[in-house]
Amino acid sequence: MIPNDVSPEEEHLASLADQHQALRTWLRLLSCTTLIENRVSSRLRSEFDTTLPRFDLMAQLARFPEGLFMSKLSQLLMVSGGNVTGITDTLEREGLVERIMLPEDRRARKVRLTAKGHAAFDQMAAVHETWIEGWLKGLSEQEQQHLYVLLGKLKQHLNESSGSISTSSEI
Amino acid sequence: MIPNDVSPEEEHLASLADQHQALRTWLRLLSCTTLIENRVSSRLRSEFDTTLPRFDLMAQLARFPEGLFMSKLSQLLMVSGGNVTGITDTLEREGLVERIMLPEDRRARKVRLTAKGHAAFDQMAAVHETWIEGWLKGLSEQEQQHLYVLLGKLKQHLNESSGSISTSSEI
Repeated sequence: MIPNDVSPEEEHLASLADQHQALRTWLRLLSCTTLIENRVSSRLRSEFDTTLPRFDLMAQLARFPEGLFMSKLSQLLMVSGGNVTGITDTLEREGLVERIMLPEDRRARKVRLTAKGHAAFDQMAAVHETWIEGWLKGLSEQEQQHLYVLLGKLKQHLNESSGSISTSSEI
Repeated sequence: MIPNDVSPEEEHLASLADQHQALRTWLRLLSCTTLIENRVSSRLRSEFDTTLPRFDLMAQLARFPEGLFMSKLSQLLMVSGGNVTGITDTLEREGLVERIMLPEDRRARKVRLTAKGHAAFDQMAAVHETWIEGWLKGLSEQEQQHLYVLLGKLKQHLNESSGSISTSSEI
């Protein structure tokens, strides 16, 4: 699957192996992520008149049809509670999410997508996936899979070495 | 360098190849980046009483000793001009950056690190690199190099397919 011969770029890299390899890898990871995020953000604005934080919040709610506590939602989004509350309020006013009371504790509230919110998210998510597919076309299917495996190993190490909250994302 | 045999994980992945591979790869890329960014952010706060946007701004200036125009700085940081101006103002008050007048155009200003700013950044950057090295230890040297090559290919495709501003980062 992976070519066994060494490309000139890899050979060059091997010679630099000890020179800041970890830092250079991290900066490139950050750079790719930022490039893609900025594009997603710009397309969401131009095609759906929405923002990345709104889309991300709806994406998390779409994964939990029974709803989520705000604290859990903040944790999944890895951002502060204040932002999450503000966005949730706006989405609630637009009828895209709703806060529901729990029978077992009348003071507790969960937030979930409304039917309208689900429909809106599904439409955006399908288009979003076509953007991502286009932007990742620079890598073959096999290269994408290999990248996925390498990132999985990195993520596992990060979660094991954290000692703090791990994300419950299965991705 | 790269094993030619297929691991069970890769085999499993190959069978899922057509099921949202691009999306899953992107989400994992985003997830790794966010995990590392959050850690950098938290360590910068606890160990240097500073923020990631301040660190990133100083990191860009450190690459250009002759100074940068604000517009170029905003572009390199891939964030809006407003934030960059605010952070620059604060760093200037703290004596870490300075705005310099250009002999060829007295109305134009570039911003650059002061000697104090350079010293402060160098100290943070060295410690920052040890954090990154630790967090990337989940991957072997060869895996880090392979990740670097794959991300380079992805980044090249992103820049070629953009038709808009490319980042001038060499990473």
